[in-house]
Amino acid sequence: MIVPRLIERKRDGGRLADSEWHELVAAYSSGEVPDYQMSALLMAIYFRGLDRSETSALTDAMIGSGGRLELSHLDVPRVDKHSTGGVGDKVSIILAPLIASLGVAVPMMSGRGLGHTGGTLDKLESIPGFRTDLSLTEAARQVESIGCALIGQTKEIAPADRKLYALRDATATVEAIQLIAASIMSKKLAEGLTALVLDVKQGSGAFMPDTERATALARAMIELGADRGCPVVALLTAMDRPLGLACGNALEIAESIEALKGNGPSDLMEVTFALGAEMLMMAGSAGSDSAAWEMMEKSIASGDALAKFVEIVEAQGGDARIVDDSSLLPRAAVTFDCLAGRDGIVAEVAPRTVGHGVIGLGGGRRTMEDEVDPSVGFVIYARPGARVARGERLATVHARDESGIRKGIEVLTEAITIGDDKPALLPLVSTRISAEGSADWSRPK
Amino acid sequence: MIVPRLIERKRDGGRLADSEWHELVAAYSSGEVPDYQMSALLMAIYFRGLDRSETSALTDAMIGSGGRLELSHLDVPRVDKHSTGGVGDKVSIILAPLIASLGVAVPMMSGRGLGHTGGTLDKLESIPGFRTDLSLTEAARQVESIGCALIGQTKEIAPADRKLYALRDATATVEAIQLIAASIMSKKLAEGLTALVLDVKQGSGAFMPDTERATALARAMIELGADRGCPVVALLTAMDRPLGLACGNALEIAESIEALKGNGPSDLMEVTFALGAEMLMMAGSAGSDSAAWEMMEKSIASGDALAKFVEIVEAQGGDARIVDDSSLLPRAAVTFDCLAGRDGIVAEVAPRTVGHGVIGLGGGRRTMEDEVDPSVGFVIYARPGARVARGERLATVHARDESGIRKGIEVLTEAITIGDDKPALLPLVSTRISAEGSADWSRPK
Repeated sequence: MIVPRLIERKRDGGRLADSEWHELVAAYSSGEVPDYQMSALLMAIYFRGLDRSETSALTDAMIGSGGRLELSHLDVPRVDKHSTGGVGDKVSIILAPLIASLGVAVPMMSGRGLGHTGGTLDKLESIPGFRTDLSLTEAARQVESIGCALIGQTKEIAPADRKLYALRDATATVEAIQLIAASIMSKKLAEGLTALVLDVKQGSGAFMPDTERATALARAMIELGADRGCPVVALLTAMDRPLGLACGNALEIAESIEALKGNGPSDLMEVTFALGAEMLMMAGSAGSDSAAWEMMEKSIASGDALAKFVEIVEAQGGDARIVDDSSLLPRAAVTFDCLAGRDGIVAEVAPRTVGHGVIGLGGGRRTMEDEVDPSVGFVIYARPGARVARGERLATVHARDESGIRKGIEVLTEAITIGDDKPALLPLVSTRISAEGSADWSRPK
Repeated sequence: MIVPRLIERKRDGGRLADSEWHELVAAYSSGEVPDYQMSALLMAIYFRGLDRSETSALTDAMIGSGGRLELSHLDVPRVDKHSTGGVGDKVSIILAPLIASLGVAVPMMSGRGLGHTGGTLDKLESIPGFRTDLSLTEAARQVESIGCALIGQTKEIAPADRKLYALRDATATVEAIQLIAASIMSKKLAEGLTALVLDVKQGSGAFMPDTERATALARAMIELGADRGCPVVALLTAMDRPLGLACGNALEIAESIEALKGNGPSDLMEVTFALGAEMLMMAGSAGSDSAAWEMMEKSIASGDALAKFVEIVEAQGGDARIVDDSSLLPRAAVTFDCLAGRDGIVAEVAPRTVGHGVIGLGGGRRTMEDEVDPSVGFVIYARPGARVARGERLATVHARDESGIRKGIEVLTEAITIGDDKPALLPLVSTRISAEGSADWSRPK
C-alpha cells in the first residue's frame, strides 16, 4: 500500500478496494499512516465521494478498529434512534425508556453538544450522579438486565472513527456525506442493533439545513444498514423552530420527565411517537402505526415509561428523586420572564439563535474542552403560529447572574418575531424514507 | 486566522486574501499550522485552483520565508533558465558558462533527478570535487567575481517551499499548476534575477507530458514574473526522444564538455542556442535572434565558453583537468555496444524507458535518500528518423557489472524501435510564449 498512490487514485475519481480501506484504516489507527496523508485523502473524498461499497468497507474497517456491544445472545430486538441534531431536541431521553418499557432493548449511544445543537449526554449529566461513561461490558450487562443503557461513544467503540472525526473537524472535511454516514453507522452498528430509526432534521435550525443533503445522508445510512442486515428507516422532521419549550440541559430533563408523566408539549410528543412507532414496528412489537401509538400512550398513562426511566437513572448512578422533585436538578440562580411587546402572531422562534444563546449563557460548548453549566437556558412558551397578547409571557431566561439575563433577553429579542400573519411552518413530520423509497408521512388515525 | 475556516473557504471555491497567505505560510513554517491542515488545503487547491493574485501572494510568502541571493548591487543583467525536466537534458551545463562568457550574470539554481528525469546537480557532482552546496553568500560572491554559480536550493532559500514540496510529494498534491508555478518561481525570484527563460518540454518523456498543462504552467510562471518585474519567456521543446546522445551523469558531463568545444550534437546545440538567444535578448546583450546566435557560436569557437566552464569548475572545487582528460571522470567498469538487428529507420527512442533505465543501472534515484552512481548510463547513437544498417552500433551501455549490462540491453531493446517508415517527430523547438502571447518559433537565418 503506497499511500500517495491511493490518494492520487481517489483524487482522480477512482475507487479504493475493500482491502485497501481495511489496510488504510488499520495503518492510520496504528499511526503508521500520518494525519497529513489522511487529511489529503479526506479532502479528495470531499470532492470525489465514495461509492456504496467503499462507504461499506470504510464503515466495516472503523467498526473493526474497536469493540462491540455484545448483545447477540439476547433474544430480543435491539433498536436505537439517531438524530442529525437540533435545538430543544430531547426526544432520546423520552424515547429510550418508553420503547424499553415495551420489551424492546434500546442500547442508545448519544453525543455531546457542538455547534448550535445540544447533546443528549450533556443533558443526562445534569441529573446528579448520572454516569454516561459506562464500559462496553457494563452497558451490555445493563441492557441485558433492564433493557436500556444511555451511553456515550466509549473509547472502545470505533476508535478509528474518533481519530478520523477529530481530523475532519480540524481540516474542513466534516461535511462529506459518505464520511458522515460511515462515522454514524460505525458507532451504531457496533451497538449490535437489529434496526435503527433516523430523525433527519430539516429547516434553519438543522445541523445540516439543506434537506437534499440531509436526505442523501439518510439514504447513505439506509444503504449501509441494508448491506449489514440492519434495517434503517428515516423520518424528516421540522427544525425551523425548537422542539418543545425547554432549551438547556436541566430544563430539558425536567421537560422530558413531564413528557413521561403525560404532560409533554404536543410537538415533542408527536415527533417522539412517530419515531417510536418505527422502532416498535421494526422490532416486530407492533403490527401497525396505530397499534404502536396506542402501546406508547398506554405505557405513559400506566407509568411504565416513567418507571423505566427511574430504573435507568438508578442503574447509571443518578438521583431518581428528581422525578418527583425537580428542585433536585441544577437550578439557575436568576430567572426573568420576557413579555410580548405587542399583540400579534408569533412569526418565528429562530432555533439557531436560541441554540447559540444557550451556549452564550454557558450551557453549551464552543470547544470540546469547555465546561457546561447544566442549569441555564430558555423555556419558550411562544409557539410559532400562535396568537399572543401584549404583556403575555413569551419565555423565561434561566441564567447564572444578571449579566446572563441581559444576554438572554438580547437573544430572545433577536430570536422571537411577532407579526400579523400566520407563518409558513414545516410539517412536524413530513416524509418517511426506507430502503423501499420515500413516502409522505401522516399521523395514524 | 482560523485555519479550518480558510480551508473551508478554498474548498468551497473562494479565495484567500494576501495577508492570509502570508500569515498561513509563516505559521506553517514555524510549525504552528500542522501538516495535516496544510495538506487538506493543498488538496482543496488541487481541485479549486488559485487565482493570479493568490498565486502571487503564496510565491511572495515563500520567498519571504528565507534569504535571497543579494545581487542587486551588480550592474549586470542576471538571467537563469529553468527546464520542466527531460531525459538527456544537459542544456544547463552548457548554457550557464556560455551565457556567462558573454557578460551576463547567471546565478543558476538546479535540482536533483527524481522520477525518470535526470538532475543537473547530480550531473555536476560527477565532476571530482565539485561542490553544489554553496551558501547564499558564497554563491553571490562567485557570481560577482566570475559571473556564474551552479547551485542547489540551499536551506536558506524559500524554506517554506521545501517544507511544502515534501508535503505535496507525500499527499498526491504535486500536480496543481499554480502550486508548481509558485514553487519554481519562489526559488527563481529569490535568485534576484532580472529575467528568466523556461524550457517547457513536451512529448512522452516530459515530466508533464500534457502540453496543454505544460503551457498553462508556463503562462502561470510568466504572469508571476511579470507581476514582479522579472520578464519570463518560455520555449516549448521536444522530449519525445532524449536530447543529445548521452544519458547518465558523467556521460552527460563529457558530452557537455564536447559541446563547449564545438562538437555537440546538433539537437542539443539547437535547443541550447534557442534558449540562450532568449537570455541574451532579455539581458539586452543582443538585439536580435541572429545576433545572439552569432555571439554564442563565436564564444564557443574562441574557447571563451569552455574557459568560463573551467573557471566555474575550479571556483566550486572541481577538478578542471576533466576538460582535457575525460578519463578523470567516473567511468563505468563495463561497457557493451548494442547493434541493430535489421536494416531500417529508427522509429523511436523512448525517453521514459531510457530515463528509468538509467535509474535501473544505479544512475538515478528512486527516493531522495538513494546514492547515485555517476558512471553508468547510455550513449545512444540511434537518432529517431535516421536510417540504420543491420550490425550498426545503436548505443553503448555503461554499467557497473555484467548484470547491469544485461539490464541495459533489455532497456535499449525496449526503448529503441526500428521500422520502415519515417516517424512523426515533434519539432525540436516549436513555440515561443511570452507575456505578449504565443508564436511559432523558427531558427534565425
